[in-house]
Amino acid sequence: MTLVVQKYGGTSVADPDRIKAVADHIVATRRSGAEVLAVVSAMGRTTDELEQLAFDVSSTPSARELDMLLTAGERISIALLCMAIIDRGEHAVSFTGSQAGILTDTTHGRAKIVEVRAERLRETLAAGSIAVVAGFQGVSTSSDVTTLGRGGSDTTAVALAAALGADACEIYTDVAGVFTADPRLVPAARRLDRVSYEEMLDLAATGGRVLALRSVEFARNYHVPVHVRSSFTWEPGTWVGEEDPSMEQAIISGVTYDVTEAKVTIVGVPDRPGIAARLFRTLADENVNVDMIVQNVSSAGQTDISFTVPRDDLARTRKVTDTIVEDLEARGVTHDADIGRVSIVGAGMKTNPGIAATMFEVLAHESVNIEMISTSSIRISCVVAARDVERSVRALHRALQLEAG
Amino acid sequence: MTLVVQKYGGTSVADPDRIKAVADHIVATRRSGAEVLAVVSAMGRTTDELEQLAFDVSSTPSARELDMLLTAGERISIALLCMAIIDRGEHAVSFTGSQAGILTDTTHGRAKIVEVRAERLRETLAAGSIAVVAGFQGVSTSSDVTTLGRGGSDTTAVALAAALGADACEIYTDVAGVFTADPRLVPAARRLDRVSYEEMLDLAATGGRVLALRSVEFARNYHVPVHVRSSFTWEPGTWVGEEDPSMEQAIISGVTYDVTEAKVTIVGVPDRPGIAARLFRTLADENVNVDMIVQNVSSAGQTDISFTVPRDDLARTRKVTDTIVEDLEARGVTHDADIGRVSIVGAGMKTNPGIAATMFEVLAHESVNIEMISTSSIRISCVVAARDVERSVRALHRALQLEAG
Repeated sequence: MTLVVQKYGGTSVADPDRIKAVADHIVATRRSGAEVLAVVSAMGRTTDELEQLAFDVSSTPSARELDMLLTAGERISIALLCMAIIDRGEHAVSFTGSQAGILTDTTHGRAKIVEVRAERLRETLAAGSIAVVAGFQGVSTSSDVTTLGRGGSDTTAVALAAALGADACEIYTDVAGVFTADPRLVPAARRLDRVSYEEMLDLAATGGRVLALRSVEFARNYHVPVHVRSSFTWEPGTWVGEEDPSMEQAIISGVTYDVTEAKVTIVGVPDRPGIAARLFRTLADENVNVDMIVQNVSSAGQTDISFTVPRDDLARTRKVTDTIVEDLEARGVTHDADIGRVSIVGAGMKTNPGIAATMFEVLAHESVNIEMISTSSIRISCVVAARDVERSVRALHRALQLEAG
Repeated sequence: MTLVVQKYGGTSVADPDRIKAVADHIVATRRSGAEVLAVVSAMGRTTDELEQLAFDVSSTPSARELDMLLTAGERISIALLCMAIIDRGEHAVSFTGSQAGILTDTTHGRAKIVEVRAERLRETLAAGSIAVVAGFQGVSTSSDVTTLGRGGSDTTAVALAAALGADACEIYTDVAGVFTADPRLVPAARRLDRVSYEEMLDLAATGGRVLALRSVEFARNYHVPVHVRSSFTWEPGTWVGEEDPSMEQAIISGVTYDVTEAKVTIVGVPDRPGIAARLFRTLADENVNVDMIVQNVSSAGQTDISFTVPRDDLARTRKVTDTIVEDLEARGVTHDADIGRVSIVGAGMKTNPGIAATMFEVLAHESVNIEMISTSSIRISCVVAARDVERSVRALHRALQLEAG
């Protein structure tokens, strides 16, 4: 029998009416002859509200207790969704992350799944029941409750789809699929029918907010076909899968942006081996998540190293860099929190030279100054001033002719 | 080392400020040299709100899923309380019912504790940590989440105090202890310094809302000293313990009342063996919780049987009785939902004859008609019209001279 894993995000189960609509869809899928496992996030803004409570009682909430707290959110939504499904005449059983066999490491707040022990889920599905699993959570090897970090419900869904050999993993959300740009910013943005795992990875990594990065990595590693679609229209959305060489490849899949980072530059670094290693090892030890890294060509035995970090980590990053700048024999450190990153992503870039040149021309024509550049075989990212981000995205989307129709 | 179990009800942890006040008290107790295990209910009206959500998505929520849902409430409060304690410099670890080793039967909604596997709690306390346990919940022998029914957090606290051999079980609530009558109804009501388990059982069974009945049974069976006190004033309250023959016994501990029941009468029942057994077995099979039962003396080979049931069970009860009335060869069934029960409780009654007569005289003097009477060695209960309940309680409290001072 076909097995479908369906994941419903917070907006999809935001209130009792939405939960009933989701129950209708799950029951319809079951009655069409498929086994259904649903993965659910916390309702609406529940996770944010719980987090607020934590900061109301403690300035630095214990990571273990924060996980205990936040996992209450999905517990509520799985129970309510099961009740609504049972009300419609189908069998349904809810599972916490622990009951579903999601075994993680002990890193509270962003645990990694180390194993999925899906026996209980398999039995439930084999008995004809719909299984409803709490996303975002697991149980650690030391029997504590853990969470997988924001976007973790996508990872739960893809991991369960992989473990159970599901035929598809449907990610239901409040947008209709993956678009060539954020439709709120670029109304003419076009929905993509399919993208490859690699493109989706770069879209997610550069600010496409539809799928969490880790879930895409998981899907690619375990070859899980992912279908991103809307729980408001229930229309087909975007399939994420293997690259398909038989299909004519669009050159560019999309334009993305991100305004959550800050840029740090170490100025006048001696150009000799080991300096970069030293710098980024120290930052890694402090749990700073460095994203883009650019090192300029050396001049007079000195170079500048620039990198971006989440803006929330900027203060911590400056503390680290200010401490080791002397050690590195560098001239100084500067930073700029008022930046944004604009990226274009597309597997077709590999065989279409000149895309980078086009991107730089478009930005120049818009008088946008490029502060950093970083490229991969299917992505080009430029750091620009924050105020230039939206204009850059619109201009690139237009110039690359990504509009609908 | 002294071990104190402290239970905090919903009003004691209703908001972040209350949680911080509770954390202060727990930390102070710990620093006074005692080991502390805290049992916590859901914050304020959380349980009611979650229950409302359940009925928003389903007219008859699945019992298993209702337990999954409601247990989210204590999960939130244990995590927040631990954060606040840790913020104050002490170690604290939260435990769900399952993690605390509260093993129950499989009756969702009102599970019974079958075993307490307290190893993990013992280790935590031995390591110098404060243990914070979710009240009201457990895990069933078939690995499902269960709840112990309303008031279940008291039962959790007493059960853990028994299992760990605690020196005292402190029940913190929004009243200052056990009173001779509900202080909202009788402002002159006096706080009792101590009552016996037996008196407390009768007080709880007849409408004293301070302690859940099952927790008192548990405390009596396992000889757990219970201290009921206020988390708002932190003043000493009422100790519940073994009857102490060396102390001069107050004759009456209190006047209680209950207006949640309805009266059902089977009229003209043939007075022969087996009829009552037949009736109440049928009701028990339908899960109707019968409380008072009174059978009048027989006249002309016929008798009337009256009993009270929770008003919520009245419709179900009438369905049962209407079905079997012919079978029982009875003349008919009547019911009255507009009744209340007034009781006086006191171990001293055993050796003080005439208390019942006093009670009936007081009610007669108030022109209150007595519809049913039931007595035990330390309790007398009268069913009266609902509108007469409050007046009866006040008159009895005054006539029995239970006022403060």
